[in-house]
Amino acid sequence: MDTQVLSEKVVAQDRRALARAITLVESSRADHRETAAALIEDIRRKSPHQALRIGLSGTPGVGKSTFIESFGTFLTEQGLRVAVLAVDPSSARSGGSILGDKTRMERLSRNPNAFIRPSPSQSHLGGVARRTREAVALCEGAGFDVILIETVGVGQSETVVAEMSDLFILLLAPAGGDELQGVKRGIMEMADIILVNKADGDLKATATRTCADYSGALRLLRKRPQDPEGFPKAMTVSALEEDGLAKAWEEMQALTTWRREAGHFAGRRAAQARFWFEEEVKQALLAQLQAPSARAAMDQLGQEVAQGATSPTAAAQQMLDTLTKG
Amino acid sequence: MDTQVLSEKVVAQDRRALARAITLVESSRADHRETAAALIEDIRRKSPHQALRIGLSGTPGVGKSTFIESFGTFLTEQGLRVAVLAVDPSSARSGGSILGDKTRMERLSRNPNAFIRPSPSQSHLGGVARRTREAVALCEGAGFDVILIETVGVGQSETVVAEMSDLFILLLAPAGGDELQGVKRGIMEMADIILVNKADGDLKATATRTCADYSGALRLLRKRPQDPEGFPKAMTVSALEEDGLAKAWEEMQALTTWRREAGHFAGRRAAQARFWFEEEVKQALLAQLQAPSARAAMDQLGQEVAQGATSPTAAAQQMLDTLTKG
Repeated sequence: MDTQVLSEKVVAQDRRALARAITLVESSRADHRETAAALIEDIRRKSPHQALRIGLSGTPGVGKSTFIESFGTFLTEQGLRVAVLAVDPSSARSGGSILGDKTRMERLSRNPNAFIRPSPSQSHLGGVARRTREAVALCEGAGFDVILIETVGVGQSETVVAEMSDLFILLLAPAGGDELQGVKRGIMEMADIILVNKADGDLKATATRTCADYSGALRLLRKRPQDPEGFPKAMTVSALEEDGLAKAWEEMQALTTWRREAGHFAGRRAAQARFWFEEEVKQALLAQLQAPSARAAMDQLGQEVAQGATSPTAAAQQMLDTLTKG
Repeated sequence: MDTQVLSEKVVAQDRRALARAITLVESSRADHRETAAALIEDIRRKSPHQALRIGLSGTPGVGKSTFIESFGTFLTEQGLRVAVLAVDPSSARSGGSILGDKTRMERLSRNPNAFIRPSPSQSHLGGVARRTREAVALCEGAGFDVILIETVGVGQSETVVAEMSDLFILLLAPAGGDELQGVKRGIMEMADIILVNKADGDLKATATRTCADYSGALRLLRKRPQDPEGFPKAMTVSALEEDGLAKAWEEMQALTTWRREAGHFAGRRAAQARFWFEEEVKQALLAQLQAPSARAAMDQLGQEVAQGATSPTAAAQQMLDTLTKG
């Protein structure tokens, strides 16, 4: 399909065109990359629509799928169109994540106002990040109001998701005792809202206590300029009983409104765009090493270096000469 | 001076030639880089000498300078020639580290069998790493028997030092209570030997207790294939009273001998050489962005991206076109 036609269909909210466009940006073929760049640029020009991008991190066991299913459905009931994307560099290995996601979010996946797309099958976080970021741009162009970008938090993936989100939500499970759940300080500092899920049945009291612990921990963090009074904050929700979702959405909107008015919303997007531009240039420079001929040369020189036949410095210069000539 | 002449003088253990050669590898000028690569390669061919490279990490306050002064002097008394290098990406900012190091290690700096060279003045860890690694190669070619590579452990600098060392030593101070000194697990896992310094005077009992704590902690780590029975281990030393240094050296030698015989010594060097070769290729590719014209273009495009005038993807492609043409 012609890029112009495809971009028009995406902007006209054609779901199959959107899926096709995302498949295009996920491809690593050089000609596809070029078409994808043209497509994104074209859609950006055609649609000034801006979605709310919500990053959502939660390790397995906190009920993330159930939360996305409930919260996503709740949003569509408010008349909003919701897209769900994922950053999960491990999905290539575990496999079957498409089926997994769609099975776990059965109700949402059949909802005409929702669009679920699993993480691209790439083992490299840099590749997953770029493709997800471009899929965000496409979903935005396709008129979605809320884009949920989820991650299980493997390695640096929370940082990657936070760097492409307007809000960053940390989903946690109730924990016994007064001990924080080994959440890294850096992750806590990225969170705008912490949601303690499973505040239902036997776990309700534990969830309330866990929430209080995190509220206390959040108060100890240094105040950030992008936060109004009372943020970041911790709240309880029950995805299972669909309890607390409206309140959580209210807080997300309040925070977003405040940030828009204070200029932090636009400022964060500008800084993120710049960050991804620089990141993409660096990744592209390093991608030269992934071409088959470059890999063969790296391997050959790497063996010579390992055997002591040449020094790392000399071999590196030789490799750079090869790349410049090639 | 001609490269051939310089390399001959370095191999002939001329200290001034060695200092000059290190200054050359520390330069970032393109023509100096080329000469440096040729020099290193030439020295490598002329001198098959292999030193024992000992990485040493210790935060300010653990008595690292005193330890290097005492241990370095002890080694020279065994008839060994000792070089001291440093990886400290912060030295560019703090300044005056040459004077600092030499003042703090007055005795060693006047010792004809010792050579002390402070960290190169680079704020970028990648640059410090490459230059230090090349200085190690030069010192090795200049016939030093032991090369101590020290770091204060800022950011990733311990990893960098471990990646260029045959042995990695962690120097700690006695700590009150039974609490481990917030040493990151990753750093503990890199250590071959932990030395608890200041085992003298009032602190002797505390040092012994701290050493026992770390011995216990080390036993909990997973056994590594490169370790014989009993390693990694924790020991007490007193750099001030020069106590425990002979025992520490004995253990380092025992470990080294075992690793040489088991093939781990050569294996580690081969893996390290390969790692640095790949690292250097990557750094060189990214260094293209540091040229004045590239920086200007990055800045201009970065502003356009931040203002939303173009997408990160399109701007990145434009930047890559600029680099290819330039």
